[in-house]
Amino acid sequence: MTNPRLRIAVDMDGVLADVAEQFLRYHERDFGERKSLAEVAGVEELDAFPHSRKHVYEPGFFLTAPVIPHSQEVLKALHDRFDVFIVSAATEFPQSLPEKQVWLGQHFPFISWQQMVFCGSKTIIRADWMIDDHFKNLDHFSGDTILFSQPHNLLRENGRHRRVQGWTEVWDIFNS
Amino acid sequence: MTNPRLRIAVDMDGVLADVAEQFLRYHERDFGERKSLAEVAGVEELDAFPHSRKHVYEPGFFLTAPVIPHSQEVLKALHDRFDVFIVSAATEFPQSLPEKQVWLGQHFPFISWQQMVFCGSKTIIRADWMIDDHFKNLDHFSGDTILFSQPHNLLRENGRHRRVQGWTEVWDIFNS
Repeated sequence: MTNPRLRIAVDMDGVLADVAEQFLRYHERDFGERKSLAEVAGVEELDAFPHSRKHVYEPGFFLTAPVIPHSQEVLKALHDRFDVFIVSAATEFPQSLPEKQVWLGQHFPFISWQQMVFCGSKTIIRADWMIDDHFKNLDHFSGDTILFSQPHNLLRENGRHRRVQGWTEVWDIFNS
Repeated sequence: MTNPRLRIAVDMDGVLADVAEQFLRYHERDFGERKSLAEVAGVEELDAFPHSRKHVYEPGFFLTAPVIPHSQEVLKALHDRFDVFIVSAATEFPQSLPEKQVWLGQHFPFISWQQMVFCGSKTIIRADWMIDDHFKNLDHFSGDTILFSQPHNLLRENGRHRRVQGWTEVWDIFNS
């Protein structure tokens, strides 16, 4: 009998989908200038961009989000060896749910509907690992945690999570 | 310091939303006759109704589902004492997600978006109790389980779950 495969809960926005870049683009579209990293570092996205709450309700915001570099090939490799679940705190924005599911199908076609979770609070998630860009999600998780660097979580640290700068570092962790 | 509140994961279809009745109505609409309980007892809904896969994709199928009797008042009482999460295996039918969220808001307005989970597999759910009408969901759950009687799960038993006939029995369990 083999051991059950480790289960990895992978966040979507800020880990697979580059919503930080999407916020920058929408802000530039509306205000004609691109914010610098210094302006948004350490600030929650909904606070850093004055129109953010309008943007996330615009049709297409989640559907056209860029893919975070190397997430596709590394997640595919993890998917082959582990039980991968995509866990997105998305019920705050209900209209985003179909867009998010279509986006996943386009960019991560190996992820089936069985592996998708759209929730509000991630305290209900049971897994061995969680990869997320929000302290609020990782802090309540009982397993191993990986903090995925994003502008909004820069300049902050609580010493409880292993921070990675990108997907190649995630790859290193699961191959070491 | 108080103990953390017990967390209850409550299924939606077949526990809050009367999709069995909805299938019967749609079948009657299409074929002019209502199936008897004997015809559907113990048969998975997607097998019991020849047009079921078409019906679940019809706009309005989930939005207009009747509410299961007493679910509103009992769930409100549980919500006041426990951490209630609504957990629906819904990502197989992506178009249902917004309808389900609207339906919850209409019939269970005390349930916030933070308490909603739409997933494919419920193996990822961490809670103390699970109320569900499907063996496949309860069998893999690590906490206490309540099997909510529905036509499709009649005539079947595996001795691992406490069966209830309706919400008044659920009320009794949490008040005993």
